[in-house]
Amino acid sequence: MSGSTLGTLFTVTSFGESHGPAIGCVVDGCPPGLALGAADIQAELDRRKPGTSRHVTQRREPDTVEILSGVFEGVTTGTPIALLIRNQDQRSHDYGNIADTFRPGHADYAYQQKYGLRDYRGGGRASARETAVRVAAGAIARKWLRERYGIEIRACMSALGPIDIPFVSWDEVAGNPFFAPNAAIVPQLEAYMDELRKSGDSIGARIEVVASGVPAGWGEPVYDRLDADIAWAMMGINAVKGVEIGAGFRSVIQHGTEHSDEMTPAGFLSNHAGGVLGGISTGQDILASIAIKPTSSIRLDRRSIDRGGNPVIVNTHGRHDPCVGIRATPIAEAMLALVLIDHALRHRAQCGDVESATPRIAALAPLGSQRLPSPR
Amino acid sequence: MSGSTLGTLFTVTSFGESHGPAIGCVVDGCPPGLALGAADIQAELDRRKPGTSRHVTQRREPDTVEILSGVFEGVTTGTPIALLIRNQDQRSHDYGNIADTFRPGHADYAYQQKYGLRDYRGGGRASARETAVRVAAGAIARKWLRERYGIEIRACMSALGPIDIPFVSWDEVAGNPFFAPNAAIVPQLEAYMDELRKSGDSIGARIEVVASGVPAGWGEPVYDRLDADIAWAMMGINAVKGVEIGAGFRSVIQHGTEHSDEMTPAGFLSNHAGGVLGGISTGQDILASIAIKPTSSIRLDRRSIDRGGNPVIVNTHGRHDPCVGIRATPIAEAMLALVLIDHALRHRAQCGDVESATPRIAALAPLGSQRLPSPR
Amino acid sequence: MSGSTLGTLFTVTSFGESHGPAIGCVVDGCPPGLALGAADIQAELDRRKPGTSRHVTQRREPDTVEILSGVFEGVTTGTPIALLIRNQDQRSHDYGNIADTFRPGHADYAYQQKYGLRDYRGGGRASARETAVRVAAGAIARKWLRERYGIEIRACMSALGPIDIPFVSWDEVAGNPFFAPNAAIVPQLEAYMDELRKSGDSIGARIEVVASGVPAGWGEPVYDRLDADIAWAMMGINAVKGVEIGAGFRSVIQHGTEHSDEMTPAGFLSNHAGGVLGGISTGQDILASIAIKPTSSIRLDRRSIDRGGNPVIVNTHGRHDPCVGIRATPIAEAMLALVLIDHALRHRAQCGDVESATPRIAALAPLGSQRLPSPR
Amino acid sequence: MSGSTLGTLFTVTSFGESHGPAIGCVVDGCPPGLALGAADIQAELDRRKPGTSRHVTQRREPDTVEILSGVFEGVTTGTPIALLIRNQDQRSHDYGNIADTFRPGHADYAYQQKYGLRDYRGGGRASARETAVRVAAGAIARKWLRERYGIEIRACMSALGPIDIPFVSWDEVAGNPFFAPNAAIVPQLEAYMDELRKSGDSIGARIEVVASGVPAGWGEPVYDRLDADIAWAMMGINAVKGVEIGAGFRSVIQHGTEHSDEMTPAGFLSNHAGGVLGGISTGQDILASIAIKPTSSIRLDRRSIDRGGNPVIVNTHGRHDPCVGIRATPIAEAMLALVLIDHALRHRAQCGDVESATPRIAALAPLGSQRLPSPR
Repeated sequence: MSGSTLGTLFTVTSFGESHGPAIGCVVDGCPPGLALGAADIQAELDRRKPGTSRHVTQRREPDTVEILSGVFEGVTTGTPIALLIRNQDQRSHDYGNIADTFRPGHADYAYQQKYGLRDYRGGGRASARETAVRVAAGAIARKWLRERYGIEIRACMSALGPIDIPFVSWDEVAGNPFFAPNAAIVPQLEAYMDELRKSGDSIGARIEVVASGVPAGWGEPVYDRLDADIAWAMMGINAVKGVEIGAGFRSVIQHGTEHSDEMTPAGFLSNHAGGVLGGISTGQDILASIAIKPTSSIRLDRRSIDRGGNPVIVNTHGRHDPCVGIRATPIAEAMLALVLIDHALRHRAQCGDVESATPRIAALAPLGSQRLPSPR
Repeated sequence: MSGSTLGTLFTVTSFGESHGPAIGCVVDGCPPGLALGAADIQAELDRRKPGTSRHVTQRREPDTVEILSGVFEGVTTGTPIALLIRNQDQRSHDYGNIADTFRPGHADYAYQQKYGLRDYRGGGRASARETAVRVAAGAIARKWLRERYGIEIRACMSALGPIDIPFVSWDEVAGNPFFAPNAAIVPQLEAYMDELRKSGDSIGARIEVVASGVPAGWGEPVYDRLDADIAWAMMGINAVKGVEIGAGFRSVIQHGTEHSDEMTPAGFLSNHAGGVLGGISTGQDILASIAIKPTSSIRLDRRSIDRGGNPVIVNTHGRHDPCVGIRATPIAEAMLALVLIDHALRHRAQCGDVESATPRIAALAPLGSQRLPSPR
Repeated sequence: MSGSTLGTLFTVTSFGESHGPAIGCVVDGCPPGLALGAADIQAELDRRKPGTSRHVTQRREPDTVEILSGVFEGVTTGTPIALLIRNQDQRSHDYGNIADTFRPGHADYAYQQKYGLRDYRGGGRASARETAVRVAAGAIARKWLRERYGIEIRACMSALGPIDIPFVSWDEVAGNPFFAPNAAIVPQLEAYMDELRKSGDSIGARIEVVASGVPAGWGEPVYDRLDADIAWAMMGINAVKGVEIGAGFRSVIQHGTEHSDEMTPAGFLSNHAGGVLGGISTGQDILASIAIKPTSSIRLDRRSIDRGGNPVIVNTHGRHDPCVGIRATPIAEAMLALVLIDHALRHRAQCGDVESATPRIAALAPLGSQRLPSPR
Repeated sequence: MSGSTLGTLFTVTSFGESHGPAIGCVVDGCPPGLALGAADIQAELDRRKPGTSRHVTQRREPDTVEILSGVFEGVTTGTPIALLIRNQDQRSHDYGNIADTFRPGHADYAYQQKYGLRDYRGGGRASARETAVRVAAGAIARKWLRERYGIEIRACMSALGPIDIPFVSWDEVAGNPFFAPNAAIVPQLEAYMDELRKSGDSIGARIEVVASGVPAGWGEPVYDRLDADIAWAMMGINAVKGVEIGAGFRSVIQHGTEHSDEMTPAGFLSNHAGGVLGGISTGQDILASIAIKPTSSIRLDRRSIDRGGNPVIVNTHGRHDPCVGIRATPIAEAMLALVLIDHALRHRAQCGDVESATPRIAALAPLGSQRLPSPR
């Protein structure tokens, strides 16, 4: 299949380079009859650009999405939904040195080796700008998941570099530019970022993603497991280097008596599994955690080579987030939504007639008090 | 696509339950002309059952693989290669309580909710026995990768529960039942396992997987990234709860100056990226690390429910590894091989005519001294 | 995807060569809870070998199918169903001349050019023997379609070479080895075949396939159209050279007033569309017609070349049907069933919540009197 | 996979309704380094609208294509190529009766039953307008096939309703609005069409498609056969009801001695196979023939029902081609190109290392004198 298409039944086919005419996607397989307008998608896109925060750089463009097809009289028709976002900030100039040198930690060298050429303008296809497309498509998925199943998908930052961010409440996430579930720690994060910016260096981050209300039974055994597809989706986000489900790497030092979630008629007593067993959802919250590497574009001098293989010194000027992780939260939510809707459709395709005689149970603990995997 | 098929061009379609008549798979898309015999596959299968170690339980069966098709006069023909492994140890008895109760940490409950019924014999489809199929298919993939590109794929255990296993040498891996790259630590591991077995509990583990010799340029940008597909493959192994590429979760606390691998005409100066940038291989070693949860089947009493939703106490008797991670090493190697051959074929399909004018570089450090991501 | 896998959600992955150890397939995506036993599949396999007719050659083997997985306590579990048919009639000898020469009308030359080698024994992978696998998998599909939707799939021969076979009744199909829906014409067919056999030559045939009871709404617009997938499935049967849906090639000379099927509250007034409009089923009978070429294996001398490119004379001895079309009827039924179940699952995946406010109508005419496309 | 995506490696994902804001597609998997500009695509799009011919109606819009991504400095980059065609002739009015009634022979009823609603404006997704997207994507495919392999793809009309059009020369196709390979017959075709238009009725047509220069070895055995994929692609064109490869339905009455193409060191002596044996190309011309039904939109009164199931009389006013087959020629060429490039890439993925020791042969006859399947 196409390397730019995501999903099996609910598919997203992405296109566009950072500084080309436009980016966008085709969303196919969406159930018909879903009320949908550009505003539904725009709202998610706007979350990806946290206003006037000095901690994330702003492209001078609105990222306005246009729905080109698949919606008629305010509802989806079941045919492909094409979304278009024009690039208005192309600044097609001063790429001279980028064209011939490979920036450390960037995809420049890998693209050059694969294709023999590359669109070097602003990172071209490898730019984080492509993630706007995922957020836009994810907005459709999460709307359907919410309206059809009452599923809520949330994410937050649990660590900014060395600073752990204890989970307080989902209500606090929207109130700060870091998507931190903890208002009290924001001043510390601000101070850290200000210092970092001065230094010219960058830092990593850690994000937690949670889906609540997912019915038991979604996913496939063996290969297309729900947790495997989530790992694929999360590792496919720019700059992600690690993915955990539930207890994740803490499982290494856990005993079976601690890790295996006991069950009672009232529900599961813990959620080390992260809501997935044998690749299939259990009805508990789906818990994923991802590691995001520090921005590769930094002001400081770095050794590299040019296309001739000669040694060069590279340093990146202009607008760059010292922590790309800050923007990653809405993207992680979108990717999880896209995985879930695909499995929702796959499940009812094969098992649409199944009526389990077994009572469904969920987690005892309400989501609010759900203990998230703590960063290390 | 089928939830039991892995890969895009080099595909593996798996079948079989733990205690049914047989397990096996159909491998399709294999390049023609590869010298292949049952012995090539059997050798890998045998590595998965580390002889008479008292630390892993043994099914009383040889796991003999039969090639049913796709090989003629000792070479692959390019048509589907069907592999069959008969189950000889079905012991179709004493499933009474398993049939009606859901074992904590097992897929029992999830399968029941998805399908409305399940083959409860020995875990059915969810049994780790299915992984024999992956090892068998992986044997074909790694043979082609080695012969065509000189690629070597190796894995080892880097942590047994709380015990970190410092990397010494690949040469030491085969010499102990733990796949530990460190002979000196084996007595400590033996002692730990003996104690654990007495306690009736189980423990997690951590595995490192490395592919060396992978050419630059394999993988797809944006969605079907090489690292995303590796994450999918690893998270799809039974009991895996976390996956890292390169620096993984250490990236969270790294600065850009540390994480981004500098380049010189002689090669990369480090490998925090784990051999993948922008979803495409760089020519450096591919580095992945996985977390494996403790065995769910333990002797100790656990709370659960039965199919009627009534509370029950479950404890598992019979043969069970207190650390499933010990067996996971050859499986991780096989899964990485399957991902790599698929991308090798995808790459030459699209870019078969590309001749990069840019010199290809690799890592300065030879594999032996390659610093692996250290467990935490 | 794998070139040996058929379907999107209900998939069949086929393997095996004519004279290798076995043929078989893995059927994945089957809904759970379907009552299924080997006898259900065997019954269809047996229809493919019309007993003691002197008009079709008999391999000296029973084609016994074994279910290796996916069925537990007499019902499907939703996991992959592996079907195995051992080859007992391998006669691994006297292939000398076939190995080095290319038989006219056979795949020998094409395989050699593609793979650089080939399993020449009995045609290897290109043998019509592989169609047994399709019939076996199709048996599962048609059982589910019948039990879940009351769909009936039937096929018959409508022309044996120059002899048109007017449709009389489905009831007459099973009564003769030609699958002719017309008992009166059988003696003429017998005489024609006897004469043909004496001549050493072979002849083509035409088959009609009909599915009744298919709900309106199955299929995809634009690309994965129901009629396109049927055309793919039928053209994929060995020796098929043409496919028609509904009026087929007669549409060329039809006027819109004749071809476009009018509708009344009681139903459609004709079925030139063959039950598909815009790629989606209308609720009318699905009508397909296929052309099958004459057997390429004939006793008479033919010019060809050998692997060295030298001219040779080829003539084929041993058992060969002078009309492969006679065996094709159950295969066409199976292929149609496989296409329909796949679209049934795809449809409910996307549109499972749709409740049309529009009354569903079907054809006025009962199937029995359904006028089939007449051969020309 | 997505029902709106075509291809396995070279994929086309289509979107857009006839009277929505735009139509277009995303072409993914294109080899990098292909020189490509909008003009290359526009040229093919313009062929689809044969100028000022009075025999095809003209939308008052230029069908101007915009390349949104995947091309940099005049060559393809290997990343997704998005093509956009704005609809400028939307005339969003007077749909009143179409909204509530189902036009005979149209997809209206099928869409309504599938989705529970439909975009009725100008046929929405089912409009032949979508075929512009196929022509645009096909232009990229045929350019690569020509430049990389010297493959030429041509199509022509071989029958306009009852009028057979004997093949004279490819050179005559471009000289008339019917794509007839025979200038002498054009006056007769003009007269027939003038008469037909007066009558208010419509008529079918037959198109032949030929690809020359296709190497031997492309295609997959068993399921994803080259001929099966061609049948899928052709039957997927609006209004197509039949597909033939090579001798097609004439095979029914052929003897093996006539049908099976003999071979000599100089090449094949005939091409009844249509360039495909066992699903794999032989190096001969690929020959396909398709039947196109008469336009369903006619002025004359037709019986139908409305959404309430009540009887209505429908007749279509406004612009409609009395023979949609006239426009179909470039579309058939495009679809064949898309199938061929996909198999070209699939073939070199699996068999890129194969060097056949067998000499490749082609047809004795040059393309010009290639006898095409004659319409009946």
